[in-house]
Amino acid sequence: MTLMTSRSRGPDCVARVAAGISAFFDAKESMARGYGRRYADLWAAARRSSEGGKRFRPALVINAYHSLGGTSDEHAVVVATAFELLHTAFLLHDDVIDMDTVRRGQPNLLGACAAHAADRGASQRAAATWGQASAILAGDLLIHAAQSQVARLEVPGHTRSALLDLLEETMFVSAAGELADVAFSTTVEPPVLCDVLSMTQWKTAHYSFQAPLRSGAILAGANDEALNALSEYGHHIGIAFQLRDDILGVFGSDDLTGKSTISDLREGKITALMCSGLQLDDTGELRQILAHDDITESDADRARKILEDTGARTSIENLVADYAQLGVAAIDTPALPAPLREQLAVVAHKACERSS
Amino acid sequence: MTLMTSRSRGPDCVARVAAGISAFFDAKESMARGYGRRYADLWAAARRSSEGGKRFRPALVINAYHSLGGTSDEHAVVVATAFELLHTAFLLHDDVIDMDTVRRGQPNLLGACAAHAADRGASQRAAATWGQASAILAGDLLIHAAQSQVARLEVPGHTRSALLDLLEETMFVSAAGELADVAFSTTVEPPVLCDVLSMTQWKTAHYSFQAPLRSGAILAGANDEALNALSEYGHHIGIAFQLRDDILGVFGSDDLTGKSTISDLREGKITALMCSGLQLDDTGELRQILAHDDITESDADRARKILEDTGARTSIENLVADYAQLGVAAIDTPALPAPLREQLAVVAHKACERSS
Repeated sequence: MTLMTSRSRGPDCVARVAAGISAFFDAKESMARGYGRRYADLWAAARRSSEGGKRFRPALVINAYHSLGGTSDEHAVVVATAFELLHTAFLLHDDVIDMDTVRRGQPNLLGACAAHAADRGASQRAAATWGQASAILAGDLLIHAAQSQVARLEVPGHTRSALLDLLEETMFVSAAGELADVAFSTTVEPPVLCDVLSMTQWKTAHYSFQAPLRSGAILAGANDEALNALSEYGHHIGIAFQLRDDILGVFGSDDLTGKSTISDLREGKITALMCSGLQLDDTGELRQILAHDDITESDADRARKILEDTGARTSIENLVADYAQLGVAAIDTPALPAPLREQLAVVAHKACERSS
Repeated sequence: MTLMTSRSRGPDCVARVAAGISAFFDAKESMARGYGRRYADLWAAARRSSEGGKRFRPALVINAYHSLGGTSDEHAVVVATAFELLHTAFLLHDDVIDMDTVRRGQPNLLGACAAHAADRGASQRAAATWGQASAILAGDLLIHAAQSQVARLEVPGHTRSALLDLLEETMFVSAAGELADVAFSTTVEPPVLCDVLSMTQWKTAHYSFQAPLRSGAILAGANDEALNALSEYGHHIGIAFQLRDDILGVFGSDDLTGKSTISDLREGKITALMCSGLQLDDTGELRQILAHDDITESDADRARKILEDTGARTSIENLVADYAQLGVAAIDTPALPAPLREQLAVVAHKACERSS
C-alpha cells in the first residue's frame, strides 16, 4: 500500500526514514560488537525484522505533517522512524506470544535465531529458549528506541510533551489490544463480534493509523478539530484495514500476502471473520475444525466453505466497506486541507480493496 | 540491604518513591478498566511485581543526588521511580526467558496469571500462553513507563539529555548481559570465568549500581570525576553483589532469600560460582549433575560438596571481597563528599556480607 503522490515531498522523506533506520541499526550493531558476536548478530537480526514492511506508518506521519503545514522534514522523519521501530517491536513480541516462526514468508527473528542455535548444536529446547530470548530482548530495545526518538526531539516543550503523551497512550492501548487478542484465543468461550472489533481498534488501528496521523498533525501544530478528525478516520480505517487482513489471512494468496492462509486457522485466532463464522454456523462444524490440533489443507478448505456459505465472509466484507465509509466521512471537515483529504480517501479505498 | 542513614533526607524520599509508584499504578489500573477486566487485572499484577523488593536502586539514586548537593527532591524521586520500574520490567522478562514461575518465594506474574487462566478452564498450553503474554506485555509497559519518567523531567535540556543517554546505555548494556547469560546456558561449551564476570557487569552491575548512582549525580550537576568514580564503584560493587547472590542461590537459606537453593542448579544457570566449579572439578561429576533433567535434593547436596571441595566457593568468596575492595578504592577521591564515601563503603560491606 503506497501512500505517497509524486507531487508531495513525501517520497523524499520516506527515503530519509529508511536511511535513518539504517543509520540507527549501523550505530547499534557497531557498538554491540563490544559485547560479543552474538549481541551484534541480534542487532543485525533486528534490522532484518524492520525491513520488508510497507512502511505505511511513516508515510502517514509525514503526509499528515506536510499537508498540515509542517516544514521541518527532520522532525517528521524522526517521529516517523519512531513509529516504524515501535511497529517492529510489536511484531517481534507478537511472534513470541503466538509462537510464530515465520513472518512475511521468511523465518522471523525468533525462528532464525532458534535455527542458528540448533545449527550450533543446541538442543531443541535450548534453541527455542534462545530464539525466544532474542525476540524478547530485540523488542525491548526497539520499544525503548522508539521512545528515545520522540524524547530527544528538539521541539517546543508542549509539542514534545503532547507527542510523549500520544506515545504513552499508544503503548497502553496497543498492549490492551494484544492482551484481549490473546484472551480470545485462550479462553473457553469465544467472544462476541463487538468485543473483537474493540480489540482490533486497540491492537491495530491505534498504533497503525490514529497515532501516526495524530503525531504528524501535533508536530505541525494542527488544531483540535483536525486532530479529532484524523483520530476518528484512523479508528475506522484501521479497523477496515485489519478486517481486510483477516479475510486475506484465510482467503488471500500466499504469494501476495507472504503469509500462509492456513496459519490463522491453525492458531485458532479469533478474528472478526472467525467470530462471525462461529456465530453464524449453527452446525458447530467450524468450531470443531478450529479445535483440531493440526488442521489439514482439507480442513482449511472446509472452514473456508463454511465461512462463505454462512455469509460470514460477506458480512465482514460489508463491515470493511462500512468502516471505510465512516473513515472518509470523518475527514469531511474544513479543518483538514483538501489534498490531505484526497490522499486519505485513496488510503481508505486501498485499505478495503487491497489483496496484499 | 537498607542504604539510608537516619540523618539523611533519604528515608523520606524513598517513602515518596513508594508513594509515586503506587500512584502510577493507581492511575494505570483505573484507566485499564476501560479496556476490560483482564487488562485491569494485568496492571494489578504488575503492581504486585513491583512490591516486595529491597528498593535499593531508588535509594542509590537519592543518596547520590543529595550527597552531591541536589536540592529538588521531586526530580530525584522521579528518576528513582524510573529505575525501580525498569528493574521490575527486567525481572518480568527475565522470568519469561527462564520460564520461572516463582519470584521472592511467591508465584510471579507469569505463574499467577497462568494459574488464574487454568482456574478459568484454560488448557495447560493456553494457560502458559496467557501467563507468558501477560508477563511480556507488563514488562513492555514498564520499560516504556521508566523512560517516560525521565523524558518528562522538567530539568535543563542538557541534563535531561544526559539522563536519556544513560538510560539508553542501560537498556543496551543490560540486554547484552541478559543475552550473554542465556547464551551461556543454551550453548554446548561452557564459558570461561572472565566471560561470566563481563556478563555479570552488563546484566546486573550497570542497571543496579552504576546507572542509579550516575543518574543521581547527573541530576545534581556533579563533575566528570565524581561520575567516573561512581561508575567504577558501581561496576565493582555490582559484580560483588551478584557473585554473593550466586553463592546465596546455592548455599543460602531459602527462608532468608525467598528463593529455592536448588533452582539455579535445576536451570543449569552458568553463574561465576558454577563456572568456577566446572573448571576446577576435573572428575566431570558436576557437569554430569547439571546435565540431569530433574536434579534431586541429593544431587544438589553432592553439587554443593563439589563446589566446596574443589575450592570454587572459596575462590568466588575471595572474588567478592576483591571486587568490594576495588569498589571502595574507586571512591577514594575528593570529588566525592565524605558522607557519600562513608555510605557507599557501608553498601560495599553489606553487598559482600549479606545473607539475603
